[in-house]
Amino acid sequence: MRDWEENVRKVVPYTPGEQPKTDGVIKLNTNENPYPPAPGVKKVLESFDVDALRLYPDPKIEMLVDAIADFYGLDSSKVFVGVGSDDVLAMIFMTFFNSKKPILFPDITYSFYNVWADMLRIPYEQIPLAEDFSIVPSDYYKANGGVVFPNPNAPTGKLMPLDQIIDIIEQNQDVVVVVDEAYVDFGGESALPLIDKYDNVIVVQTFSKSRSLAGSRVGFAMANPVLIKYLNDVKYSFNSYTMDRITIEAATATINDRAYFEETTAKVIKTREWTKEQLKRLGFTFCDSKSNFIFAKPANVSATKLFEDLKENKIFVRHFSSPERINDYLRISIGTDEQMQTLIRFLENYQC
Amino acid sequence: MRDWEENVRKVVPYTPGEQPKTDGVIKLNTNENPYPPAPGVKKVLESFDVDALRLYPDPKIEMLVDAIADFYGLDSSKVFVGVGSDDVLAMIFMTFFNSKKPILFPDITYSFYNVWADMLRIPYEQIPLAEDFSIVPSDYYKANGGVVFPNPNAPTGKLMPLDQIIDIIEQNQDVVVVVDEAYVDFGGESALPLIDKYDNVIVVQTFSKSRSLAGSRVGFAMANPVLIKYLNDVKYSFNSYTMDRITIEAATATINDRAYFEETTAKVIKTREWTKEQLKRLGFTFCDSKSNFIFAKPANVSATKLFEDLKENKIFVRHFSSPERINDYLRISIGTDEQMQTLIRFLENYQC
Repeated sequence: MRDWEENVRKVVPYTPGEQPKTDGVIKLNTNENPYPPAPGVKKVLESFDVDALRLYPDPKIEMLVDAIADFYGLDSSKVFVGVGSDDVLAMIFMTFFNSKKPILFPDITYSFYNVWADMLRIPYEQIPLAEDFSIVPSDYYKANGGVVFPNPNAPTGKLMPLDQIIDIIEQNQDVVVVVDEAYVDFGGESALPLIDKYDNVIVVQTFSKSRSLAGSRVGFAMANPVLIKYLNDVKYSFNSYTMDRITIEAATATINDRAYFEETTAKVIKTREWTKEQLKRLGFTFCDSKSNFIFAKPANVSATKLFEDLKENKIFVRHFSSPERINDYLRISIGTDEQMQTLIRFLENYQC
Repeated sequence: MRDWEENVRKVVPYTPGEQPKTDGVIKLNTNENPYPPAPGVKKVLESFDVDALRLYPDPKIEMLVDAIADFYGLDSSKVFVGVGSDDVLAMIFMTFFNSKKPILFPDITYSFYNVWADMLRIPYEQIPLAEDFSIVPSDYYKANGGVVFPNPNAPTGKLMPLDQIIDIIEQNQDVVVVVDEAYVDFGGESALPLIDKYDNVIVVQTFSKSRSLAGSRVGFAMANPVLIKYLNDVKYSFNSYTMDRITIEAATATINDRAYFEETTAKVIKTREWTKEQLKRLGFTFCDSKSNFIFAKPANVSATKLFEDLKENKIFVRHFSSPERINDYLRISIGTDEQMQTLIRFLENYQC
């Protein structure tokens, strides 16, 4: 080993779901939206002034910040925009989780939280979910350096009621509490109204799921202006110009089309409910998902075996080999009706 | 102050150059390219499959990594891609500058280096440039946690000869040495061949200047595969999917058009040489720039006054109020011939 290697930050990175390069795959493994982006995105590309790409974008991303603020009826000073909600969350970890006390998050949750904490040398404690995969608010009453959890939780899809979120916030007034709402638009109740009552709460959302723009990388945070200012200071200390000109316009066109958003999320919800019935009929067990995926345990076959057999038949779902408590489950994203029918047909005829 | 504020990473962010929102401005303040992106970018937008934006992009950005590797005759394992060279440099600081010894960089240089170091709690020492704004290699012989400098330097535009860079590298075999070549395509000699001889050298470049894509946010690093692997591990621990699908294709089309790149950089160089002659004639003093800007001191007026008067006449240049040694200078980006003629005409008739 050379001496310079001693100064290297050595980390074990997050492993994203596979992005298969072959065609004809039914891709139910990374919780993407089965419907295309809002029609306005195509118009943006058609009329985009390519020459303007020689110029830096607006570092404040005002066009998009204002559009998000409009959509949610907020002042723009309460909105922060980043390159996907992963970028937003990474910035939040850097900005607000600098205590010597551990931050708290569930043991079964978005598997990037411990990666960020490890990388940024943030102490953390993973709080076990209850037997039924619920987050138990009273487990978060202890002294800590911050709290973060998704709602609905990932990869369980389970929604925590708002009064329990309020309970966690009330008991954690001296730290920042982050509610990661990547999947909230599929039937969850957002904690957004709480940002006006509690100055230590951040709500994070993304364009990657309910807004069909995973390929554009857009996420955002909403909180009181003091938190947003601190977050922007760190962002501007990292990279002044994070979001490219085309994405700013495409994302603005997307958030401005409320009707399309409501139509496509309603379709995903409807397909999810149908899929739940079918999986139940086929003996799968799962908790009630309010997200765009179902986290389900097959009846008479190991999840690993079914995962591989599905993959062989060009149906990609996600399997997590750890922690052990969830390795009997598969996370199945909600596709189109046709895709889910194909999945169910496969399962009906499946001989393991 | 609320208790949660104690855990906040409080920073003083980098201040980017102004992005004026009014039309008709001659914008010579952020070193953008006056020529539009390569024609292939327009074709990418015209034929782009918008529906694909619902899917995550390739986290490895292989299409673009391979194209950059091809352009420079490298193996793809030697190329790292980020969201602008600021993102690349921030990742490099996080990955490689974790020593307790200070990292070294010039006192007059890209003003983001100390911002990253402050934000990431990296100790640093700013080494004064010589009287003539040169970087003096022997100043970098001392024990340190890493070395970073731009070549040509910013905002001076001054090029360091390759033998002096080799000297710095030879004397710093136990740390990572970063050569930030944002402006090298305008007449500098790249340190790229050194990455095969020295396993601790990283060369950073950008699409924002010589490739007319500041608005798309693309930067890259080239180094031996071990360094690139460490860098990717940290990147994947921060954000798995940093670059959006459109930008990956647009940047690939850009790097694949070598002829357009050579034509436009030659034009900028020609205009720069003409501008130097004119500024000299008008009594400005400056060191010999090999970048797409000239860092020049006016003869009979303060830089601050001239900056304001230019701005009033819709000509934007950049002025740095600190450090004191450079506050008599203006950094003037090279625009089109016509833009520079307008600037020179203004200066010829200028009465302060």
